[in-house]
Amino acid sequence: MTEQIVLLAGFEPFEKEPVNASWEAARLLDGQMVGGARIVARQLSCVFDKSREELGAALDTLRPCLVVAAGVAGGRTELSVERVAINVDDARIPDNAGAQPVDRPIVADGPAAYFSTLPIKRVVHAMRAAGVPAAVSQTAGTFVCNHIFYALMHALAGRDDAPRAGFIHVPYLPSQTAARPGVASVSVEIIATGLRVAIAEALRPGPDLVETGGALH
Amino acid sequence: MTEQIVLLAGFEPFEKEPVNASWEAARLLDGQMVGGARIVARQLSCVFDKSREELGAALDTLRPCLVVAAGVAGGRTELSVERVAINVDDARIPDNAGAQPVDRPIVADGPAAYFSTLPIKRVVHAMRAAGVPAAVSQTAGTFVCNHIFYALMHALAGRDDAPRAGFIHVPYLPSQTAARPGVASVSVEIIATGLRVAIAEALRPGPDLVETGGALH
Amino acid sequence: MTEQIVLLAGFEPFEKEPVNASWEAARLLDGQMVGGARIVARQLSCVFDKSREELGAALDTLRPCLVVAAGVAGGRTELSVERVAINVDDARIPDNAGAQPVDRPIVADGPAAYFSTLPIKRVVHAMRAAGVPAAVSQTAGTFVCNHIFYALMHALAGRDDAPRAGFIHVPYLPSQTAARPGVASVSVEIIATGLRVAIAEALRPGPDLVETGGALH
Amino acid sequence: MTEQIVLLAGFEPFEKEPVNASWEAARLLDGQMVGGARIVARQLSCVFDKSREELGAALDTLRPCLVVAAGVAGGRTELSVERVAINVDDARIPDNAGAQPVDRPIVADGPAAYFSTLPIKRVVHAMRAAGVPAAVSQTAGTFVCNHIFYALMHALAGRDDAPRAGFIHVPYLPSQTAARPGVASVSVEIIATGLRVAIAEALRPGPDLVETGGALH
Repeated sequence: MTEQIVLLAGFEPFEKEPVNASWEAARLLDGQMVGGARIVARQLSCVFDKSREELGAALDTLRPCLVVAAGVAGGRTELSVERVAINVDDARIPDNAGAQPVDRPIVADGPAAYFSTLPIKRVVHAMRAAGVPAAVSQTAGTFVCNHIFYALMHALAGRDDAPRAGFIHVPYLPSQTAARPGVASVSVEIIATGLRVAIAEALRPGPDLVETGGALH
Repeated sequence: MTEQIVLLAGFEPFEKEPVNASWEAARLLDGQMVGGARIVARQLSCVFDKSREELGAALDTLRPCLVVAAGVAGGRTELSVERVAINVDDARIPDNAGAQPVDRPIVADGPAAYFSTLPIKRVVHAMRAAGVPAAVSQTAGTFVCNHIFYALMHALAGRDDAPRAGFIHVPYLPSQTAARPGVASVSVEIIATGLRVAIAEALRPGPDLVETGGALH
Repeated sequence: MTEQIVLLAGFEPFEKEPVNASWEAARLLDGQMVGGARIVARQLSCVFDKSREELGAALDTLRPCLVVAAGVAGGRTELSVERVAINVDDARIPDNAGAQPVDRPIVADGPAAYFSTLPIKRVVHAMRAAGVPAAVSQTAGTFVCNHIFYALMHALAGRDDAPRAGFIHVPYLPSQTAARPGVASVSVEIIATGLRVAIAEALRPGPDLVETGGALH
Repeated sequence: MTEQIVLLAGFEPFEKEPVNASWEAARLLDGQMVGGARIVARQLSCVFDKSREELGAALDTLRPCLVVAAGVAGGRTELSVERVAINVDDARIPDNAGAQPVDRPIVADGPAAYFSTLPIKRVVHAMRAAGVPAAVSQTAGTFVCNHIFYALMHALAGRDDAPRAGFIHVPYLPSQTAARPGVASVSVEIIATGLRVAIAEALRPGPDLVETGGALH
């Protein structure tokens, strides 16, 4: 019998930061067993097209039963479980290879958006029960995180056996904000706990909770 | 020759507020001529399905050459020109008729999202040039504002002669935040100026600016 | 009979801003009659020692019955009526003459702090009644605003006939934040209304309201 | 030879919170040796007058060589080393005994303020070097935290052998903000590390760093 694999993707550092909290947390979980499946952590480049190729290769090789991609949302106070990926790149800063696309579709003839197929309400519920600050987010931005989230959902779209997949943004680590008053952080252990709980919850079959996670605007 | 009409929709008050800044600004502009077209302001109910019927009726009657729907995003500091409407209602609070849908598609078999057809970068640029705090926003939330934005774009989708259309969120008015320290506001004159400038810019043909208005997350 | 004078001080621009909202509002009020007194607006340099000399000269010349000094607190959402000035300069950036004192007492043997002698709760109450976002603030910072506030109270301390005096911080103007998403502003008319109402209220004798304006931290 | 004691005070929960981060961190440090001194943690009531009596009794009994009082500043993102305590109680909410003083001096004939006698810049520097988010704060509010900070400094004022003393505000714990999107937290281990580092630094003699920790407003 083949082992069940959970692909947990994190990103390399960007925007002059020394570390990327998503990767620091992901590598803590690499190799751990959750709900009968083994977590395999993979680091993605913070580069628009390259990250997508790396993700595609990992999907092909690992054939995961669940995919959680994670990235940093600097300044947020909680782990945010993204609801939707939109079909546009609009980079406020260059990516790590110097590319800065503006209003470019990610997939030329792709749909305007894809919704996460994670049970996002259950995931938030489980994170909070574990003491991890968490919320549903209605936007993953328009930079490499949204790009990879959209590319991930597009790669899986239409497959009969598509695994659940989605994206979770995580805050900065405390060491990154030590000298930045007013900028929130969450420690790597708590981020890792949140991701682990999210994976465990997403591995459990069944429909999502009917519980509001919406935003007035 | 028939007169060109710009439909400017604003909302009635909700969430126990005495006024709705979007409507207060819209009615200041009602009847004004901009770029050869006449602005017709219409107030929408803050009720999921009813607002959509009201908007549909206005589209049928007025046959506008441009549609700008506006609503309040309490707490934001600037006018936000929304980029995308998503196909989900997820109400954190009940609407004015007591309905509180959770994770319900707005259009059962509709696409996951629609992008604004306003030249959003040009609109932001023009607002800022007029001294009006403005930015592109990547989410219109999941309440009645996103609902009407999605319904608007869905109603126009596929029409050969579809007018440009989009949604702009506006902050609270100062009178609403007088006793709420830390909550931002913008005066009604500045909001009205911003909406007027947005309409003028959107009436001018031509492609959008290639200028970043993206978000890292 | 001599005319009653209200000295309303505002500051010149600093930190590379093109304007200073405190002065833009003050000069709108210059010469206006409020409660039987005439407002005289004076612009102060954003320079530690020089501003104090300018203020001292204005006090000597005008012999005001009320002194309100105003400055900008960029990023705040409301007019803040300062409660207390502390005896320290600690400059995060250089002043307009290049001086950047760190942890230097303003008055070598002065008390650690002075409280405003404005009826700060009544002033906030009156501003809010006029629809102006307002709150008591527990800190005026440690830059030139706090410096002039402390120097003002020190100059008046111990005088039998000392007029009421205090400091009010005001937000940026909308034109300053047009391209700065997330940074709050208040229009100059509303700031001027707030300062005018504050002056009118402070001119009325009687004790302050017993109404909380405190902060948990 | 008598043992050197560091008094580390934390507070009991208030405002309906189940825990108080200042006490959770303080008790982790209770009994630890730092710089040759032993930390003794004491919990204070969140009650205006009672907390002061409790602190006074602890000072008399323990005769500490250093006093650090800590409390929670819910919503802040970093540990804030308070610069100044002001002579006023102005309670936005009742304390745990139901008292809600407004604009009442803490000490009837006391000075308007006391400055911390901790080397606040060195403490912030050391915390940041340890990866702990930290900053100088210019206000400790007007609730029980400021009250105890003022009372502490007043109790020590004028004593020849007065130990260094001051106040540090700490954020909420993650478990408190799990379901509160947008509200920052810091884990108890990081808060405890910050307090430990602060104590170690404050025990080292010598003047403070000349390094800005000021605020523009």
